[in-house]
Amino acid sequence: MSSIELIYSAQKRLMGNVRETPLLHSPFLDEIAGRKVLIKAECLQHTGSFKFRGAWSAISALSKEDRSKGILAYSSGNHAQGIAAVAQIFLAPAVIIMPSDAPRLKIENTKSLGAEVILYDRVGESREHLGVKLAKDRGLTLIKPYDDHNVIAGQGTLGLELGDQVSKYDISEADVLVCCGGGGLTAGVALALRKVAPNLRVRPCEPEDYDDTKRSLRSGKRETNDRNCVSICDAILTPTPGEVTFPILSRLVGPGLVVSDREVLFAIAECFYRLKLVVEPGGAVALASALFRKDEIQGDTVIVVLTGGNTDFKTVKSAFDSI
Amino acid sequence: MSSIELIYSAQKRLMGNVRETPLLHSPFLDEIAGRKVLIKAECLQHTGSFKFRGAWSAISALSKEDRSKGILAYSSGNHAQGIAAVAQIFLAPAVIIMPSDAPRLKIENTKSLGAEVILYDRVGESREHLGVKLAKDRGLTLIKPYDDHNVIAGQGTLGLELGDQVSKYDISEADVLVCCGGGGLTAGVALALRKVAPNLRVRPCEPEDYDDTKRSLRSGKRETNDRNCVSICDAILTPTPGEVTFPILSRLVGPGLVVSDREVLFAIAECFYRLKLVVEPGGAVALASALFRKDEIQGDTVIVVLTGGNTDFKTVKSAFDSI
Repeated sequence: MSSIELIYSAQKRLMGNVRETPLLHSPFLDEIAGRKVLIKAECLQHTGSFKFRGAWSAISALSKEDRSKGILAYSSGNHAQGIAAVAQIFLAPAVIIMPSDAPRLKIENTKSLGAEVILYDRVGESREHLGVKLAKDRGLTLIKPYDDHNVIAGQGTLGLELGDQVSKYDISEADVLVCCGGGGLTAGVALALRKVAPNLRVRPCEPEDYDDTKRSLRSGKRETNDRNCVSICDAILTPTPGEVTFPILSRLVGPGLVVSDREVLFAIAECFYRLKLVVEPGGAVALASALFRKDEIQGDTVIVVLTGGNTDFKTVKSAFDSI
Repeated sequence: MSSIELIYSAQKRLMGNVRETPLLHSPFLDEIAGRKVLIKAECLQHTGSFKFRGAWSAISALSKEDRSKGILAYSSGNHAQGIAAVAQIFLAPAVIIMPSDAPRLKIENTKSLGAEVILYDRVGESREHLGVKLAKDRGLTLIKPYDDHNVIAGQGTLGLELGDQVSKYDISEADVLVCCGGGGLTAGVALALRKVAPNLRVRPCEPEDYDDTKRSLRSGKRETNDRNCVSICDAILTPTPGEVTFPILSRLVGPGLVVSDREVLFAIAECFYRLKLVVEPGGAVALASALFRKDEIQGDTVIVVLTGGNTDFKTVKSAFDSI
């Protein structure tokens, strides 16, 4: 079961292996948002996203024997890179199932990190079924991208780190905006903050048409998205909240926030100019929410997690073309 | 006189006001450089460059009375933004003399930070003369961009921070590559590292045609550049090493390294993809040196300071167009 104890023990395993990413801010962003915006720059994590935390947590928790047999993961790209990089460090073979339309950079990086990549058709095939079959056939251990207690615990270490970093600010109450796909990071951070900073409330942020978490939190059951919708936020286009993550979210987080692709592109351009950071669309959803959903947020300060930076130049160009 | 004591006392004044910027690395960059590359991401400093350190050090050292009369600076843009931002915090009026061809973003940001900006013609006029006259006429305190002991001490705090950060790595000897214009940062870092990490050797890095420091270190006297040459590295196009900084450099640093604009553009694109950082041309010169001047560098590890990130989208586009 996911718990603060699992997060603390993940933190011990991660120590010295995971980067402590900085908490930044910019007076220019404060002005747009109408309040102080503190920004956790997790796009600076190893492999360019928070997924490295969950990957380290899960792989380091396996027995040496299981690691030597190999690891399997399915991912649109960030979990893939996290798993590939950590598996390489632990000398474990890694097989990654990725959608054939994943960004080229993510596929290339995953291969460069020594993993075997198997592409599948995101519309016609189920990566979950493919994964279970492959794991069985080859004797691999499947590490799911979010419905895994050790993965959630690894992502939760970001919450512990954040709690420590914000403690030097005088914040009585604030929302913590987290980009949300399957909910692994959102759940982990919510569990961690409830313990170390109960004055902070986690809010999942999603792209338009992929607001399954927001709707599920409202209805109280796991809602699904139309699989045929289009969004630039490739990293967080999950069909429905996780089986493991959703009960945690239901219990601990505030209402969801939803932004358009255009608002996400604006946030990407602001990250470039104001923070000197490259952020991918799925990683900029929380900042877009801080900038464009002011009235749905409470408090003088808002905390934003920039979850990933694995994007290509073309996407950043389209951000500048759109503003 | 510049000294380690001045740097320590600047560090005390800067504490809590200046960002500790992270030390990053990427296996992809290690591969290109043929050795481990540790990267001090100082482009994440407040106002997007190390100049905020020197500005804080110098302004905080003034008397309250002098501060209230106002501060004058001349700068191609980064010292300008640093001075403007710190002056605003100390409620001191700031007047900044900038070249009329400085990047628009730098001019705009300086104005947004509350400073009065006076433009001059970089080829026809001398900013030094303009500055001295204006300071006298208006009773302002001139803070020079590098030939100022408190500015050098502020930049030196980066060296103290770096010494602390690299101490967890097992490095017997390594070069520290620093982007070098007038030499304030290079001198400050060299002074600091001699004290806290004498196994590290500072190397100034410059763009082609603006290699005055490299040539001066060779000849033993302050050489000058041809003022009419063109380079994309606006932040570090100084005519000659500083009067105050050069004696320090002569005493403490290793030979200079020089790279082409094309090599700088390659480094900018790598920062984007591998580090998720936006770096300006003048801030990428040291990384370009690590990637393209392997044979002139010693040791298994090289340390690179990314000094600034105040660039526009067009420049990063030209980096991608050139590779």
